[in-house]
Amino acid sequence: MGFRNKLTGMLGIEHPIILAPMAGPGTAELAIAVSEAGGLGSLPCAMLTPEQVKAQMQIIQQRTSSPINLNFFCHNPSESDPQREAAWKARLAPYYRELGLDPNEPVKAANRAPFSEAYCSLLEELKPAVASFHFGLPEERLLARVKGAGCKVLSSATTVAEARWLEKRGADAIIAQGAEAGGHRGMFLTSDISAQPGTMALVPQFVDAVQVPVIAAGGITDARGIVAAIALGASAVQLGTAYLFCPEAKVSAPYARALREGRDDATTLTNVFTGKPARGFYNRAISEIGPVSMEAPAFPNAAAALAPLRTKAEAQGSGDFSPLWAGQAAALCREMPAAELTQQLVKEANVLLERLSG
Amino acid sequence: MGFRNKLTGMLGIEHPIILAPMAGPGTAELAIAVSEAGGLGSLPCAMLTPEQVKAQMQIIQQRTSSPINLNFFCHNPSESDPQREAAWKARLAPYYRELGLDPNEPVKAANRAPFSEAYCSLLEELKPAVASFHFGLPEERLLARVKGAGCKVLSSATTVAEARWLEKRGADAIIAQGAEAGGHRGMFLTSDISAQPGTMALVPQFVDAVQVPVIAAGGITDARGIVAAIALGASAVQLGTAYLFCPEAKVSAPYARALREGRDDATTLTNVFTGKPARGFYNRAISEIGPVSMEAPAFPNAAAALAPLRTKAEAQGSGDFSPLWAGQAAALCREMPAAELTQQLVKEANVLLERLSG
Repeated sequence: MGFRNKLTGMLGIEHPIILAPMAGPGTAELAIAVSEAGGLGSLPCAMLTPEQVKAQMQIIQQRTSSPINLNFFCHNPSESDPQREAAWKARLAPYYRELGLDPNEPVKAANRAPFSEAYCSLLEELKPAVASFHFGLPEERLLARVKGAGCKVLSSATTVAEARWLEKRGADAIIAQGAEAGGHRGMFLTSDISAQPGTMALVPQFVDAVQVPVIAAGGITDARGIVAAIALGASAVQLGTAYLFCPEAKVSAPYARALREGRDDATTLTNVFTGKPARGFYNRAISEIGPVSMEAPAFPNAAAALAPLRTKAEAQGSGDFSPLWAGQAAALCREMPAAELTQQLVKEANVLLERLSG
Repeated sequence: MGFRNKLTGMLGIEHPIILAPMAGPGTAELAIAVSEAGGLGSLPCAMLTPEQVKAQMQIIQQRTSSPINLNFFCHNPSESDPQREAAWKARLAPYYRELGLDPNEPVKAANRAPFSEAYCSLLEELKPAVASFHFGLPEERLLARVKGAGCKVLSSATTVAEARWLEKRGADAIIAQGAEAGGHRGMFLTSDISAQPGTMALVPQFVDAVQVPVIAAGGITDARGIVAAIALGASAVQLGTAYLFCPEAKVSAPYARALREGRDDATTLTNVFTGKPARGFYNRAISEIGPVSMEAPAFPNAAAALAPLRTKAEAQGSGDFSPLWAGQAAALCREMPAAELTQQLVKEANVLLERLSG
């Protein structure tokens, strides 16, 4: 028995498990471990310069010859809005003073760059097996070059309309990002977070709506979720939160604590950390400023003024101002190395499937 | 192969499919059809007087000797708040005038009664195989009488904390109501709709948290969802939206139209219709007054002032002021009689399971 299918063949992987690219906690080590174990390791590139991506990819390629996925954001970069950013800074000023920071000190711009000419040239040079995108797809001209470099292209959709849009523009497979998922919602044709479907509803509707393979994401952290996703018609799963419990993930002490204590009802969608909605554990910033704030500057600019607060609080062991991204099933996760987790999940999924078929 | 388990044995049913009790569209005909087909038919009693429940149950018992579930609400009845209700009426007054109604005409009280002494005596007389509750459980004294009458007791939980609460107080099985579900959220220990987990995340966390069987609800409308729920550890599924497409359901013309056109992203959680959050299709009332309004009187009183608008609009073929309750997977539903649907789902779930274990 096994879980190989058209998608695993296309991506050149042994197991239908994709490491979610997690800008921040995602590391080369984590990607290497998952790819070496037969899944698809992903390197989140949205917060890395092209030079940094290249350096990370060199490390990865020294350690594995298995397929790797490089992930980029495709948001429309928002114009700087000095007035709004000043208002946001003013909103946060009491926290600056509380933490002994100067609210008048200039802050650095938020470093989440959209996919660009420079990243595209890099993909042509590095030729990763897979390139994945969040918030849509690169413009047609760049996407053609990515495909020309031999990369299989994945992107996330949160509604059937987005899935159809991605298929029409050439995505080779589509990630169905259910509302349970941690981190940024990949939504790009809608901004209505209250209408975002859960994984159970979303996956079969994608399977019926598009011809390309569907990858299930959101609320899946153990073998039960994997088998359920396959039953819904998914060709693979993308797991994020599960891999945050691995030693290879770069997770601050307060983040690790939140994950270990993570309850089913401890997360919410918030825009206070970056300006775009994302799911994470409730903390002080969310409770007092959000969860959703009309004052937050557009993505990614909200992050700029929060950065000094986050850094100072984390240095004091506090996650009060940190994005503690997580999905709704953190409580099901286990702490173990990423390769072991990947293999364990596959083994347990096979056992479960055998038991179900009685 | 089959799906019988401890729960189906306890409830005395052949297939692990429970008809969701839907106050309004749920009818005796629908309950009879599902129970006769081997599932568990449910009669929603929250909008019926004890005399009406008795009359409906007589009809049912003439047509089937299979187990039946009588469903009740367990909300804390809210005191009438004349000031708030007057403000709500004023908020709705422009719509009254638009539809040619007199906003000063007194409205009837909303008729959703919580479980009571009278309903309890009725259960002791009727002795249905199953009694299910929404918004918690009856007070201890009444619950003991329900169990003394031989009824198996089910209730809905939307978080692990609620599931544990129900188990501790004697529920025989717990419905895991994922955020995808249509109709009223069963939440009773929390009011935070933004933290409500989806079905994929919720079911396995319930299975790990409680000893009693778990029933999956929310976003499940076809065989894929049923097998997925079983894989997650559920002992049965509860389906609502799927049965709204059956001729036995009492569905207005605009409601039927909304269901047939129902897209994955067409629903939201709203409190404007009753005062408690419930999932339904976007319509004019939700878009213009909600989705969530701080002005809506407490459950069920918000419904009172909306009722004349709903009646008048529906008479004109419009669902502008009707609660169009539905889950997030209406697009997967098929129109067919309820008995046929039940049997078809079981057959297809068996085929899918065989194929998966291939």
